Amino acid sequence: MAILVVGSVALDTIKTPFGTARNALGGSATYFSLAASLSVPVNLVAVVGRDFPRRHVELLRRRPIDLTGLEVARGRTFRWSGEYHLDMNTRTTRALALNVFAAFRPKIPGIYADSPIVFLANIDPALQLAVLRQIRRPRLVACDTMDHWIRRKRSTLIRLLRRVDVLTINDEEARLLAQTPHLRRAGRELLRRGPSAVIIKKGEHGSLLFRRGEMFAVPAYPLEDVVDPTGAGDTFAGGVLGYLARQRRLTAPALRRAMLYGTALASFCVEQFGVARLTTLTRRDMRRRLQAIQSLMRC
Amino acid sequence: MAILVVGSVALDTIKTPFGTARNALGGSATYFSLAASLSVPVNLVAVVGRDFPRRHVELLRRRPIDLTGLEVARGRTFRWSGEYHLDMNTRTTRALALNVFAAFRPKIPGIYADSPIVFLANIDPALQLAVLRQIRRPRLVACDTMDHWIRRKRSTLIRLLRRVDVLTINDEEARLLAQTPHLRRAGRELLRRGPSAVIIKKGEHGSLLFRRGEMFAVPAYPLEDVVDPTGAGDTFAGGVLGYLARQRRLTAPALRRAMLYGTALASFCVEQFGVARLTTLTRRDMRRRLQAIQSLMRC
Repeated sequence: MAILVVGSVALDTIKTPFGTARNALGGSATYFSLAASLSVPVNLVAVVGRDFPRRHVELLRRRPIDLTGLEVARGRTFRWSGEYHLDMNTRTTRALALNVFAAFRPKIPGIYADSPIVFLANIDPALQLAVLRQIRRPRLVACDTMDHWIRRKRSTLIRLLRRVDVLTINDEEARLLAQTPHLRRAGRELLRRGPSAVIIKKGEHGSLLFRRGEMFAVPAYPLEDVVDPTGAGDTFAGGVLGYLARQRRLTAPALRRAMLYGTALASFCVEQFGVARLTTLTRRDMRRRLQAIQSLMRC
Repeated sequence: MAILVVGSVALDTIKTPFGTARNALGGSATYFSLAASLSVPVNLVAVVGRDFPRRHVELLRRRPIDLTGLEVARGRTFRWSGEYHLDMNTRTTRALALNVFAAFRPKIPGIYADSPIVFLANIDPALQLAVLRQIRRPRLVACDTMDHWIRRKRSTLIRLLRRVDVLTINDEEARLLAQTPHLRRAGRELLRRGPSAVIIKKGEHGSLLFRRGEMFAVPAYPLEDVVDPTGAGDTFAGGVLGYLARQRRLTAPALRRAMLYGTALASFCVEQFGVARLTTLTRRDMRRRLQAIQSLMRC
């Protein structure tokens, strides 16, 4: 069952203690698509500028990622530049140029109007709602967001949550959105807003799943070297949704296994700069990493 | 099998967003003893001043905690005063008066010289070594430390590690001692220094166990209300050692289960101010919390 993803496709300049990557393929929809397309076909809706390198398009085309919805607009592609500090847990945005992304009004191609599974990556919640209005009857809607929208468009975001089944959000944003420092309270409060599952992403500390009456915790897989954490959260979401798209129902065990899958993919993502590791990943790599994560949790 | 613990017994003044406790019973050896004594008898070696309230002695005596080694010295008891901020993860020390603790030179009573299991709570590593010289042939030695000693007595601490089986240490201190920002590298580096098990405590993010060729991760139990995090790390260590003291051998499964036990105890510890919750805990509470933690990890 294919997944429709709407989000950003960007050119990232990333500086870490290990080196620098310039104008690397990035963006939430990119990481999500590369991860999810390991499980199921992905239909990507996003916008790039006329400067978007052909080799990036080709890289995406090598995977079951349909680019019918990738609009090429007059102007330059969204660019982000950031720097990670020694512990890799904090980053500073050095430059941000929305370019064509500033005027992005997602138009969902008619052939996607019956998409059963939709991932609304981090964009303006008003646009996320506008996307849902163009989809007839999705079986599963998941979304992400960020502090910027929580601060500036809280009420729109809260409205969106009523139509969302799975919310993926990082810990600081969960605290901000739920207005409580305690993650368990945040999980409960966010469940009350609509989603049947809230997944709180904690970076190197793993993730927490909250459902009514249920909690599940997955540790991140401890790596000797984290080269570039960019995109780990969207890769995680891609892994989770990719796994769920192959299941009949959104059961508790399916969600738990989906989180292991997302955790494994995210752990690969951060091993190299940008999307590099996601493009070389084999089924055997995945199987081994999943086993390692299960052994990490076994008691 | 009884555990010998050497550390601090203190009077703590704690301020949190939930209230203030003044001159509450605290100290690393106190938390450790209350936790470990739920499993096995504990022999406590520490020093207090003549002002140490009788009711605190009585509280400890109500448990299988032998106080033969609790020296009462001329002067005032060690006092610590700290404040927690809203997210409960950061704290500021407001006042610290070592008092009788400044001149503490642990004398191990002769009856403890054959202690099979020793926990060296966070004190000067030179004193931790001096304690070990007074024990004949311990079967299992565990220790903790803090940033202060890592910065000021690194080489003594490194020497101590050669004689330690289990090191419990928090994440920031592990990074500082191992001189790497990556916890997995830190775990490996610390194992190289002597211990056969390194347990890195990450507060609300749980804990990681490193052994040669093995990793294990336990999430902290997410609570709706954390009232006072003081002592959680020593309570965790008390749970771990208490559990291990009842096992024949230090096997991998035993260590994993010991960490669940420590995690459960630590989660109770933070539910109320100071040691309060540790004194009301029932076996039934523990059983239920252990089940909840196992369900949190099951996949």
